[in-house]
Amino acid sequence: MRIFRDAAKLQKWCMQQKRMGKRMALVPTMGYLHEGHLSLIETAKKNRADEIVVSVFVNPVQFGPNEDYATYPRNEKSDLAKCRKAGASAVFLPTPEALYAPDHSVYVNEERLSTGLCGARRPGHFRGVCTVVAKLFNLAQPDFAVFGQKDFQQAAVINRMVRDINFPVEIVVAPIVREESGLAKSSRNTYLSDAEKASALAIFASLRETAGAVAEKGSVPWKSQKARIVRKLEKAGLKVDYAEAVDAATLEDVKTLKPGNAVLVAAFAGRTRLIDNIIV
Amino acid sequence: MRIFRDAAKLQKWCMQQKRMGKRMALVPTMGYLHEGHLSLIETAKKNRADEIVVSVFVNPVQFGPNEDYATYPRNEKSDLAKCRKAGASAVFLPTPEALYAPDHSVYVNEERLSTGLCGARRPGHFRGVCTVVAKLFNLAQPDFAVFGQKDFQQAAVINRMVRDINFPVEIVVAPIVREESGLAKSSRNTYLSDAEKASALAIFASLRETAGAVAEKGSVPWKSQKARIVRKLEKAGLKVDYAEAVDAATLEDVKTLKPGNAVLVAAFAGRTRLIDNIIV
Repeated sequence: MRIFRDAAKLQKWCMQQKRMGKRMALVPTMGYLHEGHLSLIETAKKNRADEIVVSVFVNPVQFGPNEDYATYPRNEKSDLAKCRKAGASAVFLPTPEALYAPDHSVYVNEERLSTGLCGARRPGHFRGVCTVVAKLFNLAQPDFAVFGQKDFQQAAVINRMVRDINFPVEIVVAPIVREESGLAKSSRNTYLSDAEKASALAIFASLRETAGAVAEKGSVPWKSQKARIVRKLEKAGLKVDYAEAVDAATLEDVKTLKPGNAVLVAAFAGRTRLIDNIIV
Repeated sequence: MRIFRDAAKLQKWCMQQKRMGKRMALVPTMGYLHEGHLSLIETAKKNRADEIVVSVFVNPVQFGPNEDYATYPRNEKSDLAKCRKAGASAVFLPTPEALYAPDHSVYVNEERLSTGLCGARRPGHFRGVCTVVAKLFNLAQPDFAVFGQKDFQQAAVINRMVRDINFPVEIVVAPIVREESGLAKSSRNTYLSDAEKASALAIFASLRETAGAVAEKGSVPWKSQKARIVRKLEKAGLKVDYAEAVDAATLEDVKTLKPGNAVLVAAFAGRTRLIDNIIV
């Protein structure tokens, strides 16, 4: 497994692989890898990648000034071991300075799908995401890139970027990997106390109930479902950041929840912001 | 010579060429081709391009609401003949609808070099330029792209975009092509009456005087040069939009004009806005 820290060297190697006709996959991560990330690598293998590049980079540009950039968990040694075991061909571990010049001044901005949900609560977040993913696409030259469904809005925004800027990259979205308890795997789960972890179970439980209601009735008014979800989360001691039902492609609000719609939740367990979603 | 109107077909063809190991050049234009554009194609040949893609597209996104998008001169038949004669391999002639979905929502934005000069007078212009050039890079997959020095700020902004978004594209800047009179070739010259054309000669004449002063004295205060340029342009009946002296790489203002600096002028001859520049 190759380890790259230099952007130009990664790009050179990837372009060589591409010129040899290889099918290249990119798995962009912020590191502190868990089974969710490993399932993305697994998905890359299943999609017949010849070479899988995993990027491990906590991207400063996608964090707000009051967010957890400094404290975001990092463990390079463990990440490398997991990538090796999972069958990555290369890992890209840049420093922020290797990706952003001191006078960096170009950003990629999605202006519609990124305005609501997490985008409304985290100004500049998706501008940072789009910018770094565009950079990674240009560096790793992937035929396809794998993102997790847990970051549902991110996947939609990246799909839009690919369409609108004509990146020759296919976006593959892999399903959410959960703990046995139902809690969506997240590097940020490491922040949670046992009590917070117990409270956090209400998130997926409430999403599953809504999915069950749709499965049973075909369609249900979102308003009453939302009230039920909020009630359940608050009762569990969580602070609801948002609970929204949207069209899975356009991310536009729906008033009547129908099969294929997505229900997205963000909630705080203590100081830790968790997100989860379900396609009903 | 191939003619593409469909973005996906162009991309497919270009990726095939690239896979065969060909060295690809892109010459982005807004059409109504003149000798300035043809010199860009010539430059692409000299830079050992195996395939030269010329794009002809009046990009609506880079025009302001009160600018000349609707009236910008167009002549597809003549453009195709000129491209063929100049030795282009392919011409890309998309409609706006072929490049922008009705719900297009992703833009590439340079936030520093593009704030002054033309960027200050044409809000959104460079956002439109960066967005379309990023799209063309992804579609045409060039090893290098040729831009004209006449759009000096544009070349600087695109260079910055390439650096900051890691496009694997080399930017080649070709010198300004002028009429025998000294007037910089521009598709917009077609708007000029004979009298306006005569007035417009003052632009290059004044730039040349400044370059002469630097050549003679090594360095000169910009303030007095600027006053002289403005006086000369106004005397010729032009309305000065700006006259600035900048560091050629950073586009930062200089107070003392030294060899290697750029002097940039934008002025109206009647309703036609003309730009020109010189490296002193």
